[in-house]
Amino acid sequence: MAAMAEAGGDKGRCVRLSAERARALLADVDTLLFDCDGVLWRGETAVPGAPEVLTALRARGKRLGFVTNNSSKTRQAYADKLRRLGFGGPDAPDARPEVFGTAYCAALYLRRHLASAPAPKAYVLGSAALAAELQAVGVAAVGVGPEPLPGDGPAAWLSAPLEPDVRAVVVGFDPHFSYAKLTKAVRYLQQPGCLLVGTNMDNRLPLENGGFVAGTGCLVRAVEMAAQRQADIIGKPSRFIFDCVSQEYGIDPERTVMVGDRLDTDILLGVTCGLKTILTLTGVSTLGDVKNNQESDCLSKKKMVPDFYVDSIADLLPALQG
Amino acid sequence: MAAMAEAGGDKGRCVRLSAERARALLADVDTLLFDCDGVLWRGETAVPGAPEVLTALRARGKRLGFVTNNSSKTRQAYADKLRRLGFGGPDAPDARPEVFGTAYCAALYLRRHLASAPAPKAYVLGSAALAAELQAVGVAAVGVGPEPLPGDGPAAWLSAPLEPDVRAVVVGFDPHFSYAKLTKAVRYLQQPGCLLVGTNMDNRLPLENGGFVAGTGCLVRAVEMAAQRQADIIGKPSRFIFDCVSQEYGIDPERTVMVGDRLDTDILLGVTCGLKTILTLTGVSTLGDVKNNQESDCLSKKKMVPDFYVDSIADLLPALQG
Repeated sequence: MAAMAEAGGDKGRCVRLSAERARALLADVDTLLFDCDGVLWRGETAVPGAPEVLTALRARGKRLGFVTNNSSKTRQAYADKLRRLGFGGPDAPDARPEVFGTAYCAALYLRRHLASAPAPKAYVLGSAALAAELQAVGVAAVGVGPEPLPGDGPAAWLSAPLEPDVRAVVVGFDPHFSYAKLTKAVRYLQQPGCLLVGTNMDNRLPLENGGFVAGTGCLVRAVEMAAQRQADIIGKPSRFIFDCVSQEYGIDPERTVMVGDRLDTDILLGVTCGLKTILTLTGVSTLGDVKNNQESDCLSKKKMVPDFYVDSIADLLPALQG
Repeated sequence: MAAMAEAGGDKGRCVRLSAERARALLADVDTLLFDCDGVLWRGETAVPGAPEVLTALRARGKRLGFVTNNSSKTRQAYADKLRRLGFGGPDAPDARPEVFGTAYCAALYLRRHLASAPAPKAYVLGSAALAAELQAVGVAAVGVGPEPLPGDGPAAWLSAPLEPDVRAVVVGFDPHFSYAKLTKAVRYLQQPGCLLVGTNMDNRLPLENGGFVAGTGCLVRAVEMAAQRQADIIGKPSRFIFDCVSQEYGIDPERTVMVGDRLDTDILLGVTCGLKTILTLTGVSTLGDVKNNQESDCLSKKKMVPDFYVDSIADLLPALQG
């Protein structure tokens, strides 16, 4: 088993992670990256046994990272939630944060790409948290919150004033998304050099009770189509979010596991970046989805198969005891 | 020349329509279908010479039809605009209407597909005109106008009341489009048998002064992505809108010309339906776009080449004089 795990698991097979296999796998890795929603918790309820697993992993000296496409919380708000639900985490004020959300990583992206602009602004279709992360790296955020239609026809919409120095349009999860915002985003995007950044392309945001609402991807697509441009995507399965982790953690992909509940984001990111991958069945994707991907004649789907699966990350506990 | 025109033009060549060629072409056709915006007018200004051409065509006994993707006017409002700008048209109250807009044709679509529902309703992301056309065929329209977010979180959004008996979601041009409406549309679409209809997939709505705003296609794509369903599209280049014309007019495709300013809607529709096609350069597409399509290695683009082009439909006038 150890040899198989060292070789990056049994590619394309999606093997159940027994206690024995888990022990071998954990012996070969020093970093575990977790998606949050559907893996550690649903809404405000921790997955039973998940806090104990993370506590045991920390006790074994494993390094943990939390990689989430959600753009509606700051890094700090995520750290607070992890602690509140019993997942622990560093609480010294100078401790290295463990959370990589798309609000924070979008800010890193803008800091890098707008370094030469003296006082850059971003037009933000998104949350106050997204705005706060941008502001923390020196990018002023404009446009957060509701935006009424400026007048009753296209001519009025196009003559509404724009903020100067807007160098990027950032599209995140925005319950105030509207035609007025779409129109304004496209006007900024017509200005030379204005970047278009999407926090993620998730089509749906799953909720606690099995329901869902429209995801950020729907809003990004609308802006892309109107502007006739492709957005740079921050979140999973885009490599950029892994590069953020890698830069702060100094990751060895061979000795890193990605644990997630979605084949098209978490598992695909892990496969793309050469990590070992574990699918947990407490969230979106099912073993039926895995089977469909395995049997697909589409190469991009065949890639979305994890090395291992667990019913819940609580299944890792036996491998961590004794 | 006559032989060429009879053979459906010089496929894939996009020949300038000289007076001589135009005379030969017109001798072989009895119906001319016109796109409106960018062909007959821009905004409230008629293309110079265009009203005279239509008057001359009417005098020659040609049958005219107006085929537009715009969903924000009723059939009657379009007829009024045609007359107001000098394009004539039947004014007897029992005269057969000449206008085929996507609001009217969406209503025909719903009448056909909801025939068995006793008192069907449609959730309309669109204009009052779209609602009026639906109501005229017995489909009650709900949801027109602004819709505030019902509460401040996903749980509240999902528990807001839905109208009973909604059998279709119709997405047209909607300046009040919002995340709240997107969420509600997806909830209706989860109900068994609920249809998803888009008036058109235009990515942009061009304005009088060369500017543009986001088109209906952006809104349809957002709904499609959230609902994970493909919409049935009414407007050009979908065949459905031509079938509406054909059913009311009894069209012989070989003796019909489609005149438009967009390769990806007007010309593609004409090619798909076996009509002769004329591109006019007073609107969106350019001869550069034609050249790109001709040289493309993509079959679907190679199809978007007209038989003929004119700088303006006023160029048809010499062929109609004397």
